[in-house]
Amino acid sequence: MEKIVECIPNFSEGRDKEKIERIIDSVRKTEGVKLLDYSSDKDHNRTVVTFIGTVEGVEKAIISMAKLTYENIDMRVHKGEHPRMGALDVVPFVPVKNVSMEECILLANRVGKQIGNKFNIPVYLYEDAAKVEGRRNLAVVRRGQYEGFFDKIKQPDWKPDFGPVEVNPKGGCAAVGARVPLVAFNVNLNTNDIDIATNIAKIVRHIGGGLRYVKAMGVSLEARNITQVSMNLVNYEKTAVYRAFEMIKMEAKRYGVSVVGSEVIGLIPMEALMDCAKFYLQLENFSSEQILEKRIYE
Amino acid sequence: MEKIVECIPNFSEGRDKEKIERIIDSVRKTEGVKLLDYSSDKDHNRTVVTFIGTVEGVEKAIISMAKLTYENIDMRVHKGEHPRMGALDVVPFVPVKNVSMEECILLANRVGKQIGNKFNIPVYLYEDAAKVEGRRNLAVVRRGQYEGFFDKIKQPDWKPDFGPVEVNPKGGCAAVGARVPLVAFNVNLNTNDIDIATNIAKIVRHIGGGLRYVKAMGVSLEARNITQVSMNLVNYEKTAVYRAFEMIKMEAKRYGVSVVGSEVIGLIPMEALMDCAKFYLQLENFSSEQILEKRIYE
Repeated sequence: MEKIVECIPNFSEGRDKEKIERIIDSVRKTEGVKLLDYSSDKDHNRTVVTFIGTVEGVEKAIISMAKLTYENIDMRVHKGEHPRMGALDVVPFVPVKNVSMEECILLANRVGKQIGNKFNIPVYLYEDAAKVEGRRNLAVVRRGQYEGFFDKIKQPDWKPDFGPVEVNPKGGCAAVGARVPLVAFNVNLNTNDIDIATNIAKIVRHIGGGLRYVKAMGVSLEARNITQVSMNLVNYEKTAVYRAFEMIKMEAKRYGVSVVGSEVIGLIPMEALMDCAKFYLQLENFSSEQILEKRIYE
Repeated sequence: MEKIVECIPNFSEGRDKEKIERIIDSVRKTEGVKLLDYSSDKDHNRTVVTFIGTVEGVEKAIISMAKLTYENIDMRVHKGEHPRMGALDVVPFVPVKNVSMEECILLANRVGKQIGNKFNIPVYLYEDAAKVEGRRNLAVVRRGQYEGFFDKIKQPDWKPDFGPVEVNPKGGCAAVGARVPLVAFNVNLNTNDIDIATNIAKIVRHIGGGLRYVKAMGVSLEARNITQVSMNLVNYEKTAVYRAFEMIKMEAKRYGVSVVGSEVIGLIPMEALMDCAKFYLQLENFSSEQILEKRIYE
């Protein structure tokens, strides 16, 4: 059975096309991986890459990409709106097929160690790869950003997992982790009142007392004169897409507002949508082995 | 891009395991095809086989299977509850991936011609492969069964599309066709009153004035003391699974009955379930290219 891992590295360059292509080429050239997507944001000055491949292929590709990233990006002159702690800012590994989370955690450890030793970069393991609970949340790990790490790294709680105990001035630091696939799912409301979208977002998200694996915020879609609850579902297996959707629908009712549509941004695992079909159709004893396409490829 | 066709031949032997295995082996041995499933019914005295493969592979496999079927089955002594017109009773081809219906119709023609000429069997093309509207419906083509075809074949309307104008006494006749995938979908009701299930089945199905591509009947599930509307959705692209489901739910209400579950029998194309997720989540602008698994395999 073929094992497939997904890797979604983010690096701190979103403006210089030549540099971006040079870095991405390192993935294109690696055997055993397939580049699925990459998108650069000029305001963020940052690029998000998505590739998949065998465990070995993904390991080679990310090390090769790290090399090009550290050669081409200098954090001493980097500016951008998105929080970042290094040139190769964050490297999550996601189990996709016939791979356990445990294997992705081991992969994160091997890759983190190499980034630390080969490129002289302090590396922090996060999410499921975190060695201590306080390093699970990426936002907490990255707090203070590149500039703040020169002090932060000296605190005993923030000794890196791999690499030197000193920020690399050019490359900064890096976060390497393992996590379940993230689903970006937005629900559109037929109101242009941003307060309503924001209030619903606060109710549905974890920090507001809502669903455990939902991050959410209210957003205006000005061109359509409507608003949106924009979400990251960080564990669709435990907090199903339909559950967040139905909760928003219910909360919208108190304002006399209805849901006019929803959207998935980027990729979504088949299972996340299957769970919705199974819920609404009240399917009993359904196995994903019954999906024709699954049988074709396995 | 790899082209994949599905073939679901039915042959008239469901009791003699040795014969059944001998016939199925012809598929197992053919390169370029994959046997997905086969199940025999003793009362029906009939076996349903599902295999997929390239257009060339599927063509070779079914001709090889036909040879073994005609060698091992003698219609002169065949008895069974299910209607049948020949040893190799019915051969539908279904487009699965990167294959058009047109290609499946051409395949049905090539296979029909070979079965007619090589094995001296009258062949009728049905469903999308039918050359005249009156031969679309398999039930109409098969009417009269093996025994009745000795007369039926003499009628000008029932001259075969390929092969001799005379029933082969040992092998009978065969129906070869092309069709979209069929979804077997059952909806369970919390009543043991079979009349309610039957009435709802009559309302939802095409011949009763219901949905165009639904065949339905009421069934008792005695072990669970409930009933079921058992359906064949013969074109899930045009009559979506959720539409049949919601109609049954609505009609059940008038009896104070609710839906307690549903089930998919056998295989279902991913798209049929995706359509349900898209409907209930009100998804806008969703492309199946956003499904992670699709990107892995293509």
